[in-house]
Parts: sequence; structure tokens; C-alpha cells
Amino acid sequence: MTPTEEMNGSGNLMDFLDEPIPDVGTYEDFHTIDWLREKSRDTDRHRKIASKSKESIWEFIKSLLDAWSGWVVMLLIGLLSGTLAGVIDLAVDWMTDLKEGVCLSAFWYSHEQCCWTSNETTFDDRDKCPQWQKWSELMTGHTLGAGAYLLNYFLYVSWALLFSFLAVSLVRVFAPYACGSGIPEIKTILSGFIIRGYLGKWTLLIKTVTLVLAVSSGLSLGKEGPLVHVACCCGNLFSSLFSKYSKNEGKRREVLSAAAAAGVSVAFGAPIGGVLFSLEEVSYYFPLKTLWRSFFAALVAAFTLRSINPFGNSRLVLFYVEYHTPWYMAELVPFILLGVFGGLWGTLFIRANIAWCRRRKTTRLGRYPVLEVMAVTGITAILAFPNPYTRRSTSELISELFNDCGALESSQLCDYVNDPNMTRPVDDIPDRPAGPGVYSALWQLALALIFKIVITIFTFGMKIPSGLFIPSMAVGAIAGRIVGIAVEQMAYHHHDWIIFKNWCRPGADCVTPGLYAMVGAAACLGGVTRMTVSLVVIMFELTGGLEYIVPLMAAAVTSKWVADAFGKEGIYEAHIQLNGYPFLDVKDEFTHRTLATDVMRPRRGEPPLAVLTQEGTTVEDVEALIKDTDYNGFPVVNARQKQDGVVSNSVVYFTEDAPQLPASNPQPLKLRRILNLSPFTVTDHTPMETVVDIFRKLGLRQCLVTRSGRLLGIITKKDVLRHMAQMMNQDPESIMFN
Amino acid sequence: MTPTEEMNGSGNLMDFLDEPIPDVGTYEDFHTIDWLREKSRDTDRHRKIASKSKESIWEFIKSLLDAWSGWVVMLLIGLLSGTLAGVIDLAVDWMTDLKEGVCLSAFWYSHEQCCWTSNETTFDDRDKCPQWQKWSELMTGHTLGAGAYLLNYFLYVSWALLFSFLAVSLVRVFAPYACGSGIPEIKTILSGFIIRGYLGKWTLLIKTVTLVLAVSSGLSLGKEGPLVHVACCCGNLFSSLFSKYSKNEGKRREVLSAAAAAGVSVAFGAPIGGVLFSLEEVSYYFPLKTLWRSFFAALVAAFTLRSINPFGNSRLVLFYVEYHTPWYMAELVPFILLGVFGGLWGTLFIRANIAWCRRRKTTRLGRYPVLEVMAVTGITAILAFPNPYTRRSTSELISELFNDCGALESSQLCDYVNDPNMTRPVDDIPDRPAGPGVYSALWQLALALIFKIVITIFTFGMKIPSGLFIPSMAVGAIAGRIVGIAVEQMAYHHHDWIIFKNWCRPGADCVTPGLYAMVGAAACLGGVTRMTVSLVVIMFELTGGLEYIVPLMAAAVTSKWVADAFGKEGIYEAHIQLNGYPFLDVKDEFTHRTLATDVMRPRRGEPPLAVLTQEGTTVEDVEALIKDTDYNGFPVVNARQKQDGVVSNSVVYFTEDAPQLPASNPQPLKLRRILNLSPFTVTDHTPMETVVDIFRKLGLRQCLVTRSGRLLGIITKKDVLRHMAQMMNQDPESIMFN
Repeated sequence: MTPTEEMNGSGNLMDFLDEPIPDVGTYEDFHTIDWLREKSRDTDRHRKIASKSKESIWEFIKSLLDAWSGWVVMLLIGLLSGTLAGVIDLAVDWMTDLKEGVCLSAFWYSHEQCCWTSNETTFDDRDKCPQWQKWSELMTGHTLGAGAYLLNYFLYVSWALLFSFLAVSLVRVFAPYACGSGIPEIKTILSGFIIRGYLGKWTLLIKTVTLVLAVSSGLSLGKEGPLVHVACCCGNLFSSLFSKYSKNEGKRREVLSAAAAAGVSVAFGAPIGGVLFSLEEVSYYFPLKTLWRSFFAALVAAFTLRSINPFGNSRLVLFYVEYHTPWYMAELVPFILLGVFGGLWGTLFIRANIAWCRRRKTTRLGRYPVLEVMAVTGITAILAFPNPYTRRSTSELISELFNDCGALESSQLCDYVNDPNMTRPVDDIPDRPAGPGVYSALWQLALALIFKIVITIFTFGMKIPSGLFIPSMAVGAIAGRIVGIAVEQMAYHHHDWIIFKNWCRPGADCVTPGLYAMVGAAACLGGVTRMTVSLVVIMFELTGGLEYIVPLMAAAVTSKWVADAFGKEGIYEAHIQLNGYPFLDVKDEFTHRTLATDVMRPRRGEPPLAVLTQEGTTVEDVEALIKDTDYNGFPVVNARQKQDGVVSNSVVYFTEDAPQLPASNPQPLKLRRILNLSPFTVTDHTPMETVVDIFRKLGLRQCLVTRSGRLLGIITKKDVLRHMAQMMNQDPESIMFN
Repeated sequence: MTPTEEMNGSGNLMDFLDEPIPDVGTYEDFHTIDWLREKSRDTDRHRKIASKSKESIWEFIKSLLDAWSGWVVMLLIGLLSGTLAGVIDLAVDWMTDLKEGVCLSAFWYSHEQCCWTSNETTFDDRDKCPQWQKWSELMTGHTLGAGAYLLNYFLYVSWALLFSFLAVSLVRVFAPYACGSGIPEIKTILSGFIIRGYLGKWTLLIKTVTLVLAVSSGLSLGKEGPLVHVACCCGNLFSSLFSKYSKNEGKRREVLSAAAAAGVSVAFGAPIGGVLFSLEEVSYYFPLKTLWRSFFAALVAAFTLRSINPFGNSRLVLFYVEYHTPWYMAELVPFILLGVFGGLWGTLFIRANIAWCRRRKTTRLGRYPVLEVMAVTGITAILAFPNPYTRRSTSELISELFNDCGALESSQLCDYVNDPNMTRPVDDIPDRPAGPGVYSALWQLALALIFKIVITIFTFGMKIPSGLFIPSMAVGAIAGRIVGIAVEQMAYHHHDWIIFKNWCRPGADCVTPGLYAMVGAAACLGGVTRMTVSLVVIMFELTGGLEYIVPLMAAAVTSKWVADAFGKEGIYEAHIQLNGYPFLDVKDEFTHRTLATDVMRPRRGEPPLAVLTQEGTTVEDVEALIKDTDYNGFPVVNARQKQDGVVSNSVVYFTEDAPQLPASNPQPLKLRRILNLSPFTVTDHTPMETVVDIFRKLGLRQCLVTRSGRLLGIITKKDVLRHMAQMMNQDPESIMFN
């Protein structure tokens, strides 16, 4: 999929056209839209409705409905994306457990639901009940021993392969656009690019199904990015119900921005974070009205998801956490170190992943997507099964790593040596020495960390739905938890060290390893995506307390600075560039001293601009011009020289009134109505930084270049992008100061 | 203070100027800035630093410091505005109590601090201790009886008059700009207007001091709006330390946007809400980099305030609340009714307040600001003292109204009839019948509501610092609490009614009157300011739970719709218009069919545009032109007609190379360097909606109008604003569909 070459040509503003000509005003696939034109079309529509609404009660009601349709669309998006997120969560839960066993009382129950509904479950052994049987138990009656282990191992890998095979096949056959995270493409679409079918019904359906399969297969990928894509498909679906949105590419993108917010809202249970993510990361044109509507959509989605209650805890996320101890100034040092780790991981991941994806694009590897997915799934499953921290689903892993060790925690990570003399309050447990379980967990976590780092690089970008929020967070959470336990044990064993003396008395609860895991997760996610405010707000909404914003922010800032030092691009921008999408990033600053005249075409030595003269052009001339070039629009100039002796066909007029011609002449063709009378112009001496700013802020497709009022050439969005890329390569240091 | 008339004239882009000419590039007072030009100047500065940084280590370090200066400024703003907010809170606390009595053990203690440090305070009588003496007790030894009451009354009014007299005198004598809330002016400044001294050191000092006096005097005003002004003064102060910000009006405004966020952050203890407030309500140009820095400044400010801990509760706000019961669907009806009330209150307030302020501006009333303040203070104090709900400070009142009645609550509002047989858990108290205290509280609250509604209209806009967040919230909180208690008692006494049957069993805790107060406060604040997302987020940060976002949002949406039905403007926009500031609102949509040619000057019949010709103009001509007109800049046109026989003085050249002249001629003056070679142009047929969009998004000062490359006229920002105002008045219905 490469964008085609014909992005030039002036958009024909339809302002003065009473009856729209069919198909004038729609865009071709892989073309960029003209935001100014879309906006002006919408204003026209408004005007028409407003003036009609005074005519009759019915028209007035219609105008009210039109004004309300935006909210209706938001409501529908919220409801559908919340429902889909809930269904996906439930299905993933069940299918992930299916790899290990089945519930005999009701096969559609997940492990937790199965034992939850059973009467024979005790609190201490929450995850054991007779109704839930591992495959080996069901087939051979044994639960222990090498045979049972191998059987379970084999079935785990087989299920994984089956799920991933189904996923990649469905994507290949039915909806090729359903692969990947979708965020790079959505960013491009929101910036004004047309990719037909990318947000279609078929993509919605297939992406939802294959997302469940891909996540359940145990691959190192997450559902967060694809959920944004799914929500945007919902947005596109519902916006096609209202002509206000379906017929205006600009207005449609307002809906899509809000849908992206709803997607993040359900992915993380963070409505405010979702809105900020859409604003900061995804959207291009984000008027304030959209902010408010996005917030509404995000809230509806969050509440829909909560009423489905997929995690059974009345929470929106699996990894909701509550900590009970404060953090101390001295802990900022490890937090900042985690930030550095996150930044380095982000850089490593982006470089390695882009190199691998480029290899996939350019070598024979790309021809066997099914084989690739199967191979990676096989390797993942084989390596993941022996390690309890990689065998389970990644979001469960993150949830466990984030959790503080309460008194009732039964996990291996909480195997601390308790002081038997001490009465234990539930919430406030002092720091304790680590037991053997913690040490073995540390080893397993270290192995899991290396495994996750390597396998994620190869997983992201395969032809299945794959998000990288969850794998990135997992990498950070593992690293963070390891650091957290290390600090905790140091503080316990060395109270007297000068660095601990001031804040950590013996018998106090000083260090919360779960917080370190969370800080690490934020740092790694920040390093990969370069999110800032939205990242901190999402994390803040997970913990629900202002208390921990400072650690999160310290890590996020450090991680972004470290990663930016090695390259400005986040993973999404890197993929946009890899795929060659025409995306004009609002964040890049253009600081070169070039002028419009250096960028405009025709360059020196090139043939002159294809133009039509205001008077004296014949239909034949126009036809010839359209045949010879592949442009969609042409400047009309008020040229001095009259073409004498027009031979055949009618004369074309672009002026208001055609002059009186002798009766013998053919009827002239008036084209003024499809003429854009207000083309955007700059002078040839305009600095390119201003031109780039104008293109960005006004969302232009092209701009005419004049000198002293005479037309010299044209600059298209693509010329701007090409020039920016050239300048960037020429002088990479100049982007340092930002 | 009226903006002057000379806003026209083209900004001279300094791009190609090696050495800046002194004073070229600064703006005069009451002029608007050219955003494009400021941006391009900043890029130049960047380029220079970047190229220099390669020369030596020292230059490299300097360039790094330059890159970091933005963060340093944010840190300083956060620290100073957090500190000032803390000091203001402490001082207000003390001085408000000073109106009633004094602490004998340490006169600088407020009532609460006094009794808190005393050993003789019991838990049941928290606000009584021997160290704290009312004035009557101290002077006559009596605390009861008519004499003591009258003495206290007299002293309460006297202190109030003294405080307000000091406040208004300080404002009059030292810093006239310190009056009002400051938000309308800050909005205007951020949109690119220059008001010298508005954010100066003097204003900062006087506003801080007089804010304490004004709030302590018991007038119906709040500190939230002025705190934003104070924070912006801090921002201006610190940005003058770095040439990056002090010499560039565009960059300076980025700092001010962040400072506004810090101001709201400390005013409400809501850092995220503060950033969104700055984004939604105050700022004009808000790039993503600013978002991140604003967030940083807001957090630093919040944590500085918390470490000062002015409220003694480790919270950022006086009215932090925690509710323990959920809300029910049926309760949405009263919540929406509160929204309607908030919208109506907003409309009433804006209309009445604007009418009163216009009267003040146009009649003799405006000549006696001190008298006016004293009169309003006197009336306020005399009417407020007898009612316990108006006697105390408004934020304490709001805090009490928001609170849920726990088992240990001693206030009159929590005087419910308890069932003696029931064991009472602290958190989960069932609905109970109201006792006599509640009924008398209801009467007092109703009187307080009427009093607040009336007096706030006359208070906002006087020549003292005055915010209206707190009075608006108080009005809403009183109304909400009354409604809440009514619903609670209905639900208690009529369990069997069909509307209560489904969700409210006897003995359950169904209705939380405090939540109604909070919803009412949000509705009233929304009605007055028309905030949306930031309002909900601020309220959300007060409660800290997603749980109550739906009621808040329902009320905020209803209130905005109701208020918008009567007029689109919020109180700040109304005051901007009242004062005639040149503010181009990003929210208004311009939907009229006028063209650039209808707006540009010269109009038909007016004298032609004052222009200079590219060649052949003499210095004398230029001087004459500057004398005759009051413009700052002139278009230079490539006119055909040469002026023959130039009589005196040198010839002015705007071309690259001056032609060789005979030696006898005087030395020609080259002015190309101060020429803007890339003026912004539109064609005469460009629809005005596009022109408005361009002015808004690019922040232009003026724009040339051409037809077929020939200059026809000029449109300035002021022409645009005047045209928009004309169109709005002509056809008020057209703004309905938005």
C-alpha cells in the first residue's frame, strides 16, 4: 500500500454552487483532503439548514435533530465500543484459560469464573476447584508428573498455534487492514488522508474477532492499540448514518478523534486520559467542541464497560491499584533510573523493530506472513510455558507486578519471612526480609524480562492485530518490580546506611515494590510512544491518587528525554515514515532557512506550470491538458495574450459574464461555478517555516506561489513533506533544540 | 482603559536582518501582536543558537541552558504561585476570624489553629477553647446577651469596612490593574494583545495583598480568578529573566498559558483540571509542548501548596469530599433540575452584572469606586452577620454543604433524629428523619441563597480583586443542598412511592445531600463561565472518584445548554465585550456569506489605500505619508507609473540593488531590510469565514486583499472583529446552530 502520486491539483471550492455536481467534492483513495474546503462546505450546509428552519416547524425540528446528531453519534460510539471492549475482555479471559484447561460445570467459564461459582473453593486456594480441570487431568487423570506436564505443554502450544493461525488467516482473507495496531494509520487518516476501507465494517468485525484470537494465543501483544482502531471503526460506522458527517471528511474526522478517545478510555479505564491521548497523540484537528464530545464518548464507553464488568471487580481495568504508603524523596533516584531504562528500551525497541519491519518489507520474508506468525507463536509458546510469569496473560502479569503485597496475598512474589510475634494489620505491613519464593520469582522475572524484550520486537508489525502498550508496560513493570524488591531488601538490611537513615526506620513500611513496577511501566511506555501528559494521566487514573504523580512524572520525563536524545520519533511516527504515509506532524518544528521559491514547482529547467487562461481557452485545450497531465485541478490565469483564431469547439469562460459572441459561434461553456475564486497564495519570498505552519494549521492541500501578483508555481502538501524529509536528512543536528 | 485605534500597519518581518534595529520588533501598548512574525523570530533565534553551539563548548552549554530555560521558568512559576496561594490561604483564614475574635495565646493564630493547639479543647466542642475569645468577651467579659451580640456585630462590620477600605485604596493608589478577576484581560492578552503593566510586579504585589483583604472583608467574592491573575504575573516576572521569553511576545504567552494552569491548580487543588482550564478557557495558542510544561507547572504549584498545608488536612482544598454511597438513576432528575437552575442563574447573573457594570461605566457611579466598595461591604456585612451561613467565609460554607453527614458531625445541618436502638457504623448511616436543626438550617440557607444571588451581582466588577468561582459555587451548593435534603426526606417518608420503590429500601442510605450540593455548585459555575470539560475534571479531582462524574456531567451539560439558549457568551466573554478588547474568540463560528471584499478597506468612496511604490519614492514622500496617517506600516507596490522629476531629498529603494545614479544625486536610502517580503494575501473573493479562520489560526494582524495579483485593500484584525460584531447584531438567530 503506497500512496499514489497524484496529490496535486487545486480543490474546487463549491461555495457559489447552488446545486452540487455529483462526485465533485469527493476524494479519491490515498488522497489528502483540503480542510479549509471541508470546513467551508460544512458552513454552507449549516447556513442552508438555518435558513430553511425558519420556513416550517418540520424544518425547524429537522434542524434541531441535525444539531443533536453529534451527541447521538457520540452516545452510539460509546455504547458500542464499551460493549465490544467488554466482549473482547470476556472472550480473551476464557480463551487464554482454554490453553491450560476447561471448566467442567460450564465450558464457557474462565478459570476464575469457574472456581468463583464453585462451592468447593476455599479462600486460601482461590484458583483450585474440582470443576476446573487441566487438560492432562481431563485426559489422563493425572495432574502431576512429567507426562502430565508434557501433555499440558503440548496442548498449550497447540492451542496457541491454532488461535494465531485463525487470526492471521482471517486477516489475510477478509480484512488485510485489520492487522497491526492501527494507530499510525489512524493518525494519518485524522491528519486528512483517505484510506478507503480502513475503518470499514468488515475491518471492524475481523479486527474484533482476530484481536481476541491474537491476544489469547499468548503472543507478546496487547489489545489497547487495536481497541482504538475498533473504536474508530465504530465511529466511522455511526458517522455514515448522518449526512452531516458522512459527506464531509473534515467533520467525519472530528467524530473519529472522539472515537479514539473512547477507545483508550475502555482500554485503560481512563476517560480523561483517553481524551488527552486523542488530543496529544492521535488527533490533528481538535476544536474545543470535539474535546467536550470526546469526553462524553469516553465516559459513555467507560460506563458501558463497567456495567459489563468483565473483570468481576467493578473496576474498569484489571490492574487497578491502591497503595497505602507514601514515597520518599530518596526514592526519586531509582525512579529516575527506571526512566533511563525506559528511554533506552524505547530507543532499542523502535530501532530494532523498524529494522525488522523494513527487512520484512524488502525481502522475501514479507511473502510468508502466515508462516511468520506461526513461527513466532510457536517460539513464544514454547519459551513461555515453563516460566509461570510468561505463561499467564500479560495483563494478569502486570496486575500482579503492580500489586502491593497485602497480608492475604498468596503469590510467590509475596513470599516474605514474617515475624511471628507481630500482629499484622491488613494494610500496613512493615518491610520484611524476602523469602525463597521471592528469590526464585526474581530469577524467573529476569528471564521473563529478556524474553519479552526480544520477542516483542519481532511480534509488533506482523499481520495480526497487535498493540504494544501491554508488552511495553510488562517490560517496564518487570524491571520496576525487580528494582523495587532490591531497594526494599537493601532498606531492610541496611537501615543504617546514610541514604535510608532519614526515612526508613526499622519496622516501618518504607518501600512499595508495586509502585516501582508501575513507574517502570510508565517509563517504558513513554519511551516507546513518547506520550507525556496522557501517559501520566492514564497512570494517575489507574491509581486514583495525586500522591504518586511525581514519581510517574519523573520517570516519564526522564524516559522521554533519554529516548529523544537518540531520535525524535516515537514508534507510531517511525511506522508512519516506514510506510511512507503523507503525515505532516504538528510536533516537528521546521527551522531551516529555505524559501517558498526553493520548494515550489516547476523548478528551474522544468516545463512551465500547466495553466488555463481566463479567456480564450477552448474545450479542446482543456481536454488536451487533462489528457497530458495527471493533475486534478489547474490554476486559471488572467493572461494577456489572446489566442487568435480558435479553430474548433466552444470557448470556455471563467469570467462572470460571457461576452456577446456572433450567433455563428458555438455556445460557450461557463466554468466559473467550479472555479475556486480564493486560492491560497504566498509570495515566493515567504520562508518555508511559515509555509509549513500554514499547511499545518489550515490543513491545505496546495498553495500557489506568486511574485508581485504573477503566478510562479505551486507547492503541494507532498512537496512540503518531501522538502522536510530532505532537510531533516541533510542536517540531523538541527532538530536537537526543540 | 480603551484600546487605541491604531492597530493597523504591517509587521516588519525581521528574517533577513542581520543586526536588529533597536525598537523594531517591539509592540506598543494596546496593540495586537503578529503571531507568525513572533514565531519566525523565535525560529531565527533557535537557528542562531544552534549554529553557534557547534563553535565552542561554552556556546554548547549556553544552548543547552537555553533549551532548559522553559522548564526552569515552569519550576519557578510553580514554586512561587504555590507559595503565594498558601500564604493567601493562611492570611485569609486568620483575618476572616479576626472579624469575630482573637487568639490570646498567639494573636496570629486563626480560630481553628488556636483551639487546635490548646489542651483544653474537647472533641465535641472543637471550636470552643478558652484561648479563643470573641471581641465582646475580651472587651466586656460577656459572651451572651444583646449587648455582647451588638458589640460583636459592630466590630464585625467595622473590620469588614476597614479591610475593604484598605483593599480599594491600595488598588486605586498603586495598581489599578489589580482589580477584578483578571481572567477577561488575561484571555485578551493571551490572544495577542499588549497591556503593559497588567502582569507587572506591582500588580502582583498589590493583587496578592488586596486579595487577602477583599476575601477577608466577607464580600461575596472568591480568590480563584485573581489567583490565576497572580500566577500569570509570576509567569511574566520569571519570563523576563530569560531573553527567550522576554523578547518574544509569542513565547511569553506560552509561559503565561502554563502559569494560568498553575493558578487554577492551586485555586482548586486540581492540576489536571487547571491544565484543561487553561486549554479550554484561557489560552489562545496552545501547542503540545505547552501542554506538557503547563502540567509540570501545575503539579509543582500543587505540591508546593500541599507542603505549606494551609488547611491542616494534607489536602489541597478546603472542600475535599469523600462520599460512601452510590447514586441512583432516578436521582438524575433532580440533578438535571439543578442543571437548569444553574443555567438560569448563569443567564440572570451575566445579564444583571453586565447591565450594572455598564451603568457603572456610563454614569456618575463609576467616579466613586471607594464609596461603592464601602457601601457594598457595609450592606454585605450587616446582612451577613445575623445568618450563620453567611457570616463565615464562603469557602467554609461550601465545604460544609458538600460534606456528608457522618456520625461525628456536629453541625446544625446534620441534626437528624437518630434511632437510639441502632448501632451506628461510622460510614454507613441510613437515611433518617430531619430534626429541628435541619429545618432551621433550611430556612437560613434559603435566606442565604437570596442574599448571595443579589449581592454577587453588585460585587463582581468593583475595583477590588474579585473572583466569582466561589460565589457561584456557593449559590449552587446552597440550592443543591436544599434540594438534596428535600429528596432525602421525601425518600425517607415515602418509601412506597413508585419513584423511590426500586432503589430506596427503608433503613438504607439512599440520598447524599452533599452530592446534590456539589452537583448544584458545578451547574452554577458552568452556567456562569460555560466551562465544560475543565469544570467536570476540577470537580472530579475534588471527589477523586469516577463514580460521580455522571451526575456532574449531566448537570454541567444541562446548565450549559440552558444558559446557551439565552445567549452564547460566558461572563468572561461578556466582560471582554463590555470593555471592548480586541478578542477574536476561537469558539464563535462565523457563518455569514460575506466576502473579503466587503470587509477590506478602503471601502467604496473612501480615499485610496496609502501605499509606497517600489521605486521612485523619496524620503520626503515617506515622511509626508507617516505624518498624514496614523498607520505603522504600508504596502509597497510595484506601480507602473514612475514619478518623474523627483524634487528633493534621497530616493528610497525597496528593491535588492539600487540602480546606479549620477554622482550628483543624494545617497539613496535602502529600506529592503525592513520590508516584509511575504505579506499575507487573500483574493477579494475569499469568503469571510475563511478569512476569519486564517486570522484565528495564524494569529495575523492584517492581511492584504488582491484581485488577479493587484493590491485592492487591507483587512486588519480590528476590521474582522468589527465585521463579526456587525453581522452578529444583524442576524442573532444565525448563531443558534453551533
